[in-house]
Amino acid sequence: MAKDIRYTYPALKEFCETAFQKIGFSKGDSEIITDVLLLSDLYGIASHGMQRLVRYHKGIEKGLIKVDAKPEIVFETPVSLVIEGNDGMGQLNSYFAMTKAIEKAEKSGICIANVRNSNHFGIAGYYAKMAADKGYIGFAMTNSEAIMVPTFGKKAMLGSNPIAMAMPAKPYPFFFDASTTVVTRGKLELYNKMEKPLPEGWALDKNGHGSSDASDVLKNIVAKAGGGIMPLGGETEQLGSHKGYGYGMVCEIFCSILSMGITSNHTHIDGKGGTCHGFAVINPAIFGNPAEIEEHFSTFLRELREAPKAEGAERIYTHGEKEVIAYRDRMENGIDINVNTVAEMVDFCEFVGLDVEKYLGKLDLEKKESSYN
Amino acid sequence: MAKDIRYTYPALKEFCETAFQKIGFSKGDSEIITDVLLLSDLYGIASHGMQRLVRYHKGIEKGLIKVDAKPEIVFETPVSLVIEGNDGMGQLNSYFAMTKAIEKAEKSGICIANVRNSNHFGIAGYYAKMAADKGYIGFAMTNSEAIMVPTFGKKAMLGSNPIAMAMPAKPYPFFFDASTTVVTRGKLELYNKMEKPLPEGWALDKNGHGSSDASDVLKNIVAKAGGGIMPLGGETEQLGSHKGYGYGMVCEIFCSILSMGITSNHTHIDGKGGTCHGFAVINPAIFGNPAEIEEHFSTFLRELREAPKAEGAERIYTHGEKEVIAYRDRMENGIDINVNTVAEMVDFCEFVGLDVEKYLGKLDLEKKESSYN
Repeated sequence: MAKDIRYTYPALKEFCETAFQKIGFSKGDSEIITDVLLLSDLYGIASHGMQRLVRYHKGIEKGLIKVDAKPEIVFETPVSLVIEGNDGMGQLNSYFAMTKAIEKAEKSGICIANVRNSNHFGIAGYYAKMAADKGYIGFAMTNSEAIMVPTFGKKAMLGSNPIAMAMPAKPYPFFFDASTTVVTRGKLELYNKMEKPLPEGWALDKNGHGSSDASDVLKNIVAKAGGGIMPLGGETEQLGSHKGYGYGMVCEIFCSILSMGITSNHTHIDGKGGTCHGFAVINPAIFGNPAEIEEHFSTFLRELREAPKAEGAERIYTHGEKEVIAYRDRMENGIDINVNTVAEMVDFCEFVGLDVEKYLGKLDLEKKESSYN
Repeated sequence: MAKDIRYTYPALKEFCETAFQKIGFSKGDSEIITDVLLLSDLYGIASHGMQRLVRYHKGIEKGLIKVDAKPEIVFETPVSLVIEGNDGMGQLNSYFAMTKAIEKAEKSGICIANVRNSNHFGIAGYYAKMAADKGYIGFAMTNSEAIMVPTFGKKAMLGSNPIAMAMPAKPYPFFFDASTTVVTRGKLELYNKMEKPLPEGWALDKNGHGSSDASDVLKNIVAKAGGGIMPLGGETEQLGSHKGYGYGMVCEIFCSILSMGITSNHTHIDGKGGTCHGFAVINPAIFGNPAEIEEHFSTFLRELREAPKAEGAERIYTHGEKEVIAYRDRMENGIDINVNTVAEMVDFCEFVGLDVEKYLGKLDLEKKESSYN
């Protein structure tokens, strides 16, 4: 496996903000996109951070993502918002939606917002955290290109359909962000790069049978030839496949159904995107004293962390704990970026005319074909 | 395995309503409890139907469930309700909470209600369906005696923590009701009765290792000696254990945390119950035209049912389809009640002084020790 290259957070921030401005986004918009991407890298979720830069850029080049699009509110009540994303950048549509939802929840106690005709929005948790940072409960979800095969099916019909929830707690907030598939496509790509067989219970071949062949499964996904990733709970009802499929449906409802948007099985077909998102904000004050609720919740989280461990296990985590640990480490020691991702960043600089050495330092990378060829 | 005895729905309804009146509930309250229990049997979920009668009765005898308790609203806003259950019957507290939540959602568009200090409420889906029957989206959840072992733990800290969601659709509503554990305790009891080894990925022994020994796992659960059931996704992160654990947390938050109630790890200890529930109602009209949204949703559900099947599979179900099929069958052909459950119903009649033959017919059951000994 290729080595990583370590950058400080400020260095990546400067590069990323410059990069998005170079593509045509305003300074403010570039800051938002950068903040979403880098939180992912800081949290140790490399698949949704800098690694996405070239994919976003290509999406813009192909016309899938429109740089100058503005989100529009097409329907609203004191507790809801429906937003037309106009094929804009997912991060900008989502930041707008969550900001407005927080404003409404400040007055009404709750707001549910959904966005249609948007694009990949990065990590769902970022937006849930926006609410938690204000003392509220936040939810964020998104549909995506179909990759989840429903129980007893052989064709992907739902996206990886992540659901994220964040809520204030001490010493750190609850932060739960997970796809409703067993794993994400990124995991399959990683196993493919390592030429390792996939664990049982992850993926399906084009006939709907379990497959350990990452390369074959990925090829079929790209060709839309059948197969894909199993719902959380696997492929049979014995381990709860229908439950993961059910949570995938919950996500789909709050993203594409209530917004009258495009369901996962129809997005990303014939050059059209159509990704939809769902958000919710709940002010805990509508249930009582927020400080007492936070205290009560923090006690339960502590009890979970302190509960007896399985033989051989050292630690029980509460959701968000690993992210806090990763964040502190990377802010102090820097962020390791995969060398292939750095190569893509170099290609990007060369393509758009940014000084490689200024932003990415003196590099000695193996020469490969550009990501843009 | 013991045979089943078939009853018509009206016969069971008459028996059940009479039984609960005999215990001390009003006619109206007995009708509500009966309706919840029998919907479960009609849906084919025997574990939460008539099978529960003697357990509820024993709960009342022990003082865990208070027959004359009345739910009280202790906090409310136009979009929320917190209800003190006063150790009353779970079905009555929940019916009250959902009825009030629907009333508020009619005005405000959304309402979240939670209930503390209640008891086992039957199937979560019943209450979600109450909202869907009115054209709304409904959610219902409950915590319970701890049975889910968090990832890397060996002690049960969360309940089976089911989450149910229902939403109008054609030709039948979406109805998703599932525990956030891989399976429920009822499944373990069934395997124990059949003396079959548990499938891999269901349960943990008292050291936190996978176990196929149903009898041992159940014994440990009763003795609170350690072990329990795995979260949806199993015991390791490889298959997503942390995700099932996360959904269990979402349930816990909406039940016991926001209501300042008792978390699963502290319920049912020292003769105290303390079960908490969470409910939500969302009027789809806050997002646009409900008829158009229902149409859009129904199209997606149809596409799922019609999607290509895995080799060897005959049918892809959407959530709620199996329940509708079971309901129609049982309304027409009657409901099969397990002979052991019928024996319990006989014991109940003898204990409270109800005419067995009048309500349960002429029976020729093997004589066993009474359930009340």
